[in-house]
Amino acid sequence: MELHSFVSISHVILDYLGTLAFAMSAALVAVEKKFDIVGLAVLALVTAIGGGVLRDVIIGQHPPAAFTGFSHIGIALAAAGLVFLWQPPAKLTGWPLQVTDALGLAVFCVTGTAIAAHSGLTAPSAALLGAMTAIGGGVIRDLLSGETPILLRPDSELYAIPAMFGASITAFLIHFNIYSDLTGMAAALGAFGLRMLALHFHWHAPQARRRA
Amino acid sequence: MELHSFVSISHVILDYLGTLAFAMSAALVAVEKKFDIVGLAVLALVTAIGGGVLRDVIIGQHPPAAFTGFSHIGIALAAAGLVFLWQPPAKLTGWPLQVTDALGLAVFCVTGTAIAAHSGLTAPSAALLGAMTAIGGGVIRDLLSGETPILLRPDSELYAIPAMFGASITAFLIHFNIYSDLTGMAAALGAFGLRMLALHFHWHAPQARRRA
Amino acid sequence: MELHSFVSISHVILDYLGTLAFAMSAALVAVEKKFDIVGLAVLALVTAIGGGVLRDVIIGQHPPAAFTGFSHIGIALAAAGLVFLWQPPAKLTGWPLQVTDALGLAVFCVTGTAIAAHSGLTAPSAALLGAMTAIGGGVIRDLLSGETPILLRPDSELYAIPAMFGASITAFLIHFNIYSDLTGMAAALGAFGLRMLALHFHWHAPQARRRA
Repeated sequence: MELHSFVSISHVILDYLGTLAFAMSAALVAVEKKFDIVGLAVLALVTAIGGGVLRDVIIGQHPPAAFTGFSHIGIALAAAGLVFLWQPPAKLTGWPLQVTDALGLAVFCVTGTAIAAHSGLTAPSAALLGAMTAIGGGVIRDLLSGETPILLRPDSELYAIPAMFGASITAFLIHFNIYSDLTGMAAALGAFGLRMLALHFHWHAPQARRRA
Repeated sequence: MELHSFVSISHVILDYLGTLAFAMSAALVAVEKKFDIVGLAVLALVTAIGGGVLRDVIIGQHPPAAFTGFSHIGIALAAAGLVFLWQPPAKLTGWPLQVTDALGLAVFCVTGTAIAAHSGLTAPSAALLGAMTAIGGGVIRDLLSGETPILLRPDSELYAIPAMFGASITAFLIHFNIYSDLTGMAAALGAFGLRMLALHFHWHAPQARRRA
Repeated sequence: MELHSFVSISHVILDYLGTLAFAMSAALVAVEKKFDIVGLAVLALVTAIGGGVLRDVIIGQHPPAAFTGFSHIGIALAAAGLVFLWQPPAKLTGWPLQVTDALGLAVFCVTGTAIAAHSGLTAPSAALLGAMTAIGGGVIRDLLSGETPILLRPDSELYAIPAMFGASITAFLIHFNIYSDLTGMAAALGAFGLRMLALHFHWHAPQARRRA
């Protein structure tokens, strides 16, 4: 029970940290792109809640979770305000932001899969939607800011693969009835670790050879 | 009663005028981009109904209002046909179009918020979705035509802020049970006035300072 | 009965062929764009199932049909894998791919309209959503790969118009209660034939004249 509560609270904290990291990354992109404060707030908001809203719209969760409370929207707007008023120095937006972003990726692929499976989806579909929860916001961010989604490009370290890894493990755990806060945390840790390793060793997904 | 009917009819007229303006603006962009008649019709349609469809999909209104009748789709396609056959001269597409577009913005942020609140959303979420109703179509238009959404760019006069202003007042009115056709019209008038002032005085939203 | 079964099986085969063609076309675009294997799989998947998921989200079919089984997702991922491992030579990706893609377009505009009408939409709305089912995936593919949607551009042969043609005939058939597997196949054949004729004779949709 103690452990359960501890894990659940950790989970909420990680969920908020991930939301914060996604919003911060988008706000920094917005500054880079010279967007105004509206663009900064919009980009931070859709990046932070976009993946989850997409998932909820697809599984028929109305209204999407992000709109039932104000914590995720509030965190995203606070991140936008912070970056607007005090743009963090580069040393805080390098590794610290990547680690926090990886935490968000890891948490969202696990919780996204669990929510999708709970709505009645089969394991493979739930895993797909879970990965989409984790990476969807970033794709919307890139589209809105006029970039080819990082997800698709070969010059970025593995991002979707750790998400798909964590989501698949989660779907597997759920399918065999051994999903719990604890095993879910382990799946998230796996996704987080894989993302960190990919960043550290500059692992890239392979490209298809093209005909001459 | 008389007043109530009068206001409701005005509301329907403004709703149609806004739809027309949104479709016209998109059709003119399509001509500028040298799209063909299909591109012109598609762009006019998704711009005119896109914000409302997004809202309805998020709150779980199936099918979205735009698909239950044919008036909005018909108006959008008629606007596309008009621009295709007889491209309006510049003097009709400058200020007149901006005023009509501002009417659409003002009406949609109020009605969008009211519809979202009626579906059970809390005031802040309803205001967000209301503003999204008003600005969503334009974002889709810009994405499809290969432009960075005007919404995000600092070189455009305030657009999202008047929408958020009208939506917030509406959410406030609803929260305190004083929303009516009349107070709703006042909220729309506030959003419209703010947009007009922004256009006239070239008000821009501030940008974050960037580190050297 | 014999005929009915034959037509229904043909229908399933065409549905799978269309999904395969859409996924292949996207995978080839991904190779062209030098995306990595993740980009290739994501692009193939969203192109193949995107139009149908959009339709289902709009009509309130939760979860969307593509997520209830694994056949469409499996076909899309298999196509991505095939293109990754063995990029088909140009002679297989020219006319053969265009014919298969036209089959997909034809099948999806008919089945999309039928599904939308079955959900309670009126004929014009059902036709619109049916056409969107057929062309939506391609629009998402172009947006994600940083291109102006082919749909909007005058330099491509008629694509949306055959889809709208097949969808309108289907909506008409349903409205007058004469829709069956057989008449539905005829509508699909009409859309297919129109697309093939447009490709063969290089029919383009007209552009609006622009003022000097």
